[in-house]
Amino acid sequence: MNSSFQKILKDFSLLACVIENPTDLLYLTGLELSKGVLLMEPEKATLFVDGRYLDAARKSSHFAVEPIEEGIFPENFLGRIGFDSSFVTYDRHQALCKQYPFVEWIACQNPLKTIRVCKTAEEIVSLKRAADLTAQGYRFICGLLKEGISEEELAFEFEFFCRKKGASGLSFSPIIAFGENSAYPHHRAGKTLLKKGQVVLIDVGAIVDQYRGDMTRIVFFGKADPKIIRLFEIVKKAQRKAVEAVQVGVKLGWLDKLVREEFRAEGVESLFTHGLGHGIGLDTHEYPRLKWDGEDADVPLKAGMVFTIEPGLYQPGLGGIRYEDTILVTERGAENFFAGVE
Amino acid sequence: MNSSFQKILKDFSLLACVIENPTDLLYLTGLELSKGVLLMEPEKATLFVDGRYLDAARKSSHFAVEPIEEGIFPENFLGRIGFDSSFVTYDRHQALCKQYPFVEWIACQNPLKTIRVCKTAEEIVSLKRAADLTAQGYRFICGLLKEGISEEELAFEFEFFCRKKGASGLSFSPIIAFGENSAYPHHRAGKTLLKKGQVVLIDVGAIVDQYRGDMTRIVFFGKADPKIIRLFEIVKKAQRKAVEAVQVGVKLGWLDKLVREEFRAEGVESLFTHGLGHGIGLDTHEYPRLKWDGEDADVPLKAGMVFTIEPGLYQPGLGGIRYEDTILVTERGAENFFAGVE
Repeated sequence: MNSSFQKILKDFSLLACVIENPTDLLYLTGLELSKGVLLMEPEKATLFVDGRYLDAARKSSHFAVEPIEEGIFPENFLGRIGFDSSFVTYDRHQALCKQYPFVEWIACQNPLKTIRVCKTAEEIVSLKRAADLTAQGYRFICGLLKEGISEEELAFEFEFFCRKKGASGLSFSPIIAFGENSAYPHHRAGKTLLKKGQVVLIDVGAIVDQYRGDMTRIVFFGKADPKIIRLFEIVKKAQRKAVEAVQVGVKLGWLDKLVREEFRAEGVESLFTHGLGHGIGLDTHEYPRLKWDGEDADVPLKAGMVFTIEPGLYQPGLGGIRYEDTILVTERGAENFFAGVE
Repeated sequence: MNSSFQKILKDFSLLACVIENPTDLLYLTGLELSKGVLLMEPEKATLFVDGRYLDAARKSSHFAVEPIEEGIFPENFLGRIGFDSSFVTYDRHQALCKQYPFVEWIACQNPLKTIRVCKTAEEIVSLKRAADLTAQGYRFICGLLKEGISEEELAFEFEFFCRKKGASGLSFSPIIAFGENSAYPHHRAGKTLLKKGQVVLIDVGAIVDQYRGDMTRIVFFGKADPKIIRLFEIVKKAQRKAVEAVQVGVKLGWLDKLVREEFRAEGVESLFTHGLGHGIGLDTHEYPRLKWDGEDADVPLKAGMVFTIEPGLYQPGLGGIRYEDTILVTERGAENFFAGVE
């Protein structure tokens, strides 16, 4: 059992904690379970699954596996047990209270976050493979840019390229935005056709070995408006500054502040309408969030953390710029998974 | 406002109900929102979204749209308000209680289920388009069956065929199972290669216009084991019987019982290890569940309901059979979206 998890149990004075989030179950057991409960005690863990998964889980799990139909505790079990209050629904909590009336259920928000945040060597290999394929797919669709092609055609070509090369899926529906569409950070690839002089924003990611890629680049298709080129220069400079500032011990919120200061000096701070980045791993968006006023602002960087750095400036009517890398925190600073991808 | 929803508010003596499940928001507003709150009152509804979605929502929504940052009620608002306890997490419920301390929050389980269960004419058109494309994709991959092809190659070909023809995605990761793999109802398409004499189980679905297809068929590749052919005959006969028994007013659980009685008569009841089917629409699995001892067992069939009928028999070491259609309940009985697909 992981020592940081033992610390969680100790901090909350818990006998055990139940884990039900399928991504957490995948992380801990290696199994893709749509439903299941992992009961984590200080010295052992037991996986409870229904009949559908019992044989498969017993074959491949390194935990003890029991049928969930018989319950995870005796009915009269008594003690403090944690549950993931950021995942468990109101109804599920009520059902747990009803099924085990003597258990004192203690809300623990995302109890595995401090474990999952630092990636193992094996996870880093998978994240790099996902990043490499994402970059290949990006380069492939850059070669397809021509007048009259649509955003959704490019999105489709990106997906098919990655899937043929071994991606199990995409980290998210590709954001490919031409011209003014790029001013909307959550634009989805649509029927807009490419015209000369437009900016092309490409925000894409492939999933490899369950781990996720995520990058954003800007392509100028023909001669661009000097106003949008200026935004591009500002964003790229600020993004580079944040990547270079990555160092063990630095606080997450400070990276976001650094970028905002750059933007303020250029008089464009109000055009940066989202956070600086997010943790990435088995989920595209996972703990922590990089935002100067967010709840993770004071979290210090540790070696093994992997997150995106993606400042952006968005001016409706003109267009938007975002530049995004996924970086790994190492003892020597940032290792950029998308270094050299222009 | 829908009269069945007004009835829900009245039954629970609610001033209003907050809807936060993105699929419910899509159903009610037509907008794809990763986050948002729809406040449904007896005579009106108001959509609250953050800055990312405000402009787009105001352009296309037929509800009033307000920025969520200013809150959905005044802080001192007082009254009984419903929330979807099957969707809202423990943490979100706590946050609602903290933000609006004078609201009495009333747990309503999946409050839209009785509305979403009966499909409109427009929804039925979309579901039929999804079913048609699913059937086309199924026929396409049947043409690719040959010795040495893998399950995952077929899954890939199904997906690419459907995507090229306009599907926005798949209802679920294709279940394509060769030989003994078919004995596991939740088998995922893997690296197994097709051999002569194997049974091929194909359970697939495409998404069109946001609505989902779902069908399962069995193909015998070469000369099959008479034992598995016998299971196939039993399943198909029972499935046909259940489809023919569909009629307004019949109880859902009774359809499942009917199939189990057939299986009992053949001495194979214990090999049927899951429910008979599930509602389908914007979600692949939605209310209701067809199970004789499930919570929806006593729900009577109504015109407009769309659900799957998918009995199966699974014998580890030998293989499994499932036969699945998606059917619409009409005043005249069942309309099978996969009629004629062999």
